[in-house]
Amino acid sequence: VSGDSQKRLGEFALIETLFSPLAAAAPGAAALKDDAALLSVPAGAELVATVDTLVESVHFRRIDPPDLIARKGLRVNLSDLAAKGARPENYLLALSLASWIDDEWLRRFADGLAADQKEFGITLVGGDTTATPGPLTFSITAFGSVPAGRILRRAGAAPGDCVFVSGTIGDAGAGLEMLEAVPPTDLGQPAGLAGRYLLPQPRAALGSELIGLASASLDVSDGLIADLGHIAAASGVHIEVEAARIPLSAALQSLWGTGMHAIVRAATAGDDYEIAFTAPPSVRAEIGAVAARTGIPVTEIGRVLAGQGVTLHDSSGRPMALARPGYSHR
Amino acid sequence: VSGDSQKRLGEFALIETLFSPLAAAAPGAAALKDDAALLSVPAGAELVATVDTLVESVHFRRIDPPDLIARKGLRVNLSDLAAKGARPENYLLALSLASWIDDEWLRRFADGLAADQKEFGITLVGGDTTATPGPLTFSITAFGSVPAGRILRRAGAAPGDCVFVSGTIGDAGAGLEMLEAVPPTDLGQPAGLAGRYLLPQPRAALGSELIGLASASLDVSDGLIADLGHIAAASGVHIEVEAARIPLSAALQSLWGTGMHAIVRAATAGDDYEIAFTAPPSVRAEIGAVAARTGIPVTEIGRVLAGQGVTLHDSSGRPMALARPGYSHR
Repeated sequence: VSGDSQKRLGEFALIETLFSPLAAAAPGAAALKDDAALLSVPAGAELVATVDTLVESVHFRRIDPPDLIARKGLRVNLSDLAAKGARPENYLLALSLASWIDDEWLRRFADGLAADQKEFGITLVGGDTTATPGPLTFSITAFGSVPAGRILRRAGAAPGDCVFVSGTIGDAGAGLEMLEAVPPTDLGQPAGLAGRYLLPQPRAALGSELIGLASASLDVSDGLIADLGHIAAASGVHIEVEAARIPLSAALQSLWGTGMHAIVRAATAGDDYEIAFTAPPSVRAEIGAVAARTGIPVTEIGRVLAGQGVTLHDSSGRPMALARPGYSHR
Repeated sequence: VSGDSQKRLGEFALIETLFSPLAAAAPGAAALKDDAALLSVPAGAELVATVDTLVESVHFRRIDPPDLIARKGLRVNLSDLAAKGARPENYLLALSLASWIDDEWLRRFADGLAADQKEFGITLVGGDTTATPGPLTFSITAFGSVPAGRILRRAGAAPGDCVFVSGTIGDAGAGLEMLEAVPPTDLGQPAGLAGRYLLPQPRAALGSELIGLASASLDVSDGLIADLGHIAAASGVHIEVEAARIPLSAALQSLWGTGMHAIVRAATAGDDYEIAFTAPPSVRAEIGAVAARTGIPVTEIGRVLAGQGVTLHDSSGRPMALARPGYSHR
């Protein structure tokens, strides 16, 4: 056994030690000592599954704090579950270890998973670990439960519906710009715009409350306009967004300004992990009550019409030309 | 948009075109046009989930036929499901595309998935595609159904049980040796020992028949002795294997010979994807009937005792010393 293989074997043993406690609360995990996991499905519920892969230097940087890399991996999936109206249940972790990974990195990665398991009530049930000669790569498959027949889909928006979005838009894009402009250091707890990029805030509390209210829903990851385009395409409708109503944070406005240029940039940036959804005007008040109850702001930004595609309108109602609808970080 | 990005965008569009038909039979897939899949769980059943990652130049070679790479990825998961007694239902595919991948490769990869979907009755329900600056990497998360409460685990073997294994052992290890010794070419339909390495034959028909018979079960991927060690550890028992009873193929014997050396090599090679299981002697006849019905040979190779660990015994009953219990291709 070569020195490198020795190191690898030590790491695999460490992973067992570090990850087993993460699976302790899931009986179906068999303490990670079996070939497969048994998934729990609450009575009367259906299981929703989503998978996202994060690749070093594509979705995160090697120098990013390991706990934040782990939490970002979980959170992009939690955001998908939330947008489908699902409550987090379990996840599988498929980890391809790059040669530069060391024990300390693994410890901090596991710490990040532990922190978000606690925050979002999700539990590891299984996975796979392999070595890779390439960049660190990991896939998380997350499972959530929805009441049977009630999953929120991209299809379902109807002419006459209103268009809503949670939180503020464009912050992660502005944060990435800031991170790329300054020499990176170990960031510890990220805050502000950079934090919105490094550590998405999935709207876990909002999603399940939208069941029975929203007609279509998704999470904003490719950019608000691009993602509303997905709802428009799946639903066979036209979506009209009023630029001036798109919610922007004060931090973003102090960086990018308050003009139409800043709004367009925000609406075509990516990594927001807000929920964009449509709903009939008759449930406006109920949506306001959900926003108040969850403490998650929800803003009405447009309407659904017959037709196709997404248009962004300036304050005089004129549709604006967009160079590109969003950012693809695939 | 750079030329490279253009190429990537074209590939993502092609993947949508190629993969959508693979999901046509699964209503929960929403034609792959949503953020998450709805998993089907038959009434009275539970869902079993397993994930495996395959990395270029770790688990397959770039020059391997793309359809075989895809099928191997599915089959290592199908083997896990079979060993747990589960029937295949759905899978998610997380694909990290290396820069060398071209359209023809993608077409052949999708063809491989289509062929095995048909052969094993499993359907794509979702996934994620990303670019990677590193080696081609993909994770498949496969779902199967078992009657509620009946999943076959590694734990459960009891003193007095017999030890069984399906098929023949060591063929894939011998096949890999052959492949490494000859200049590789495009292999088309692999046959013989090389075929056992390139295209595992998961014992899908056998696994679900073992429910109610087997006390513990797993698939042999790290090597027969190493994997029986996992049953011994999880069950808290000692497993004694008679070397002379380990089933070897004629092809393997003509390459490695028939002596004890060949048997030990076979029992410590990897990638067999046979099912090793334990069962009480009272169900021996029923196991024989299952083997006859499924056409999958099953051989009794040892017994379960109180104690711990695995020992391999020569024809005079003496335990043999092993340099290593198995092969770790992690």
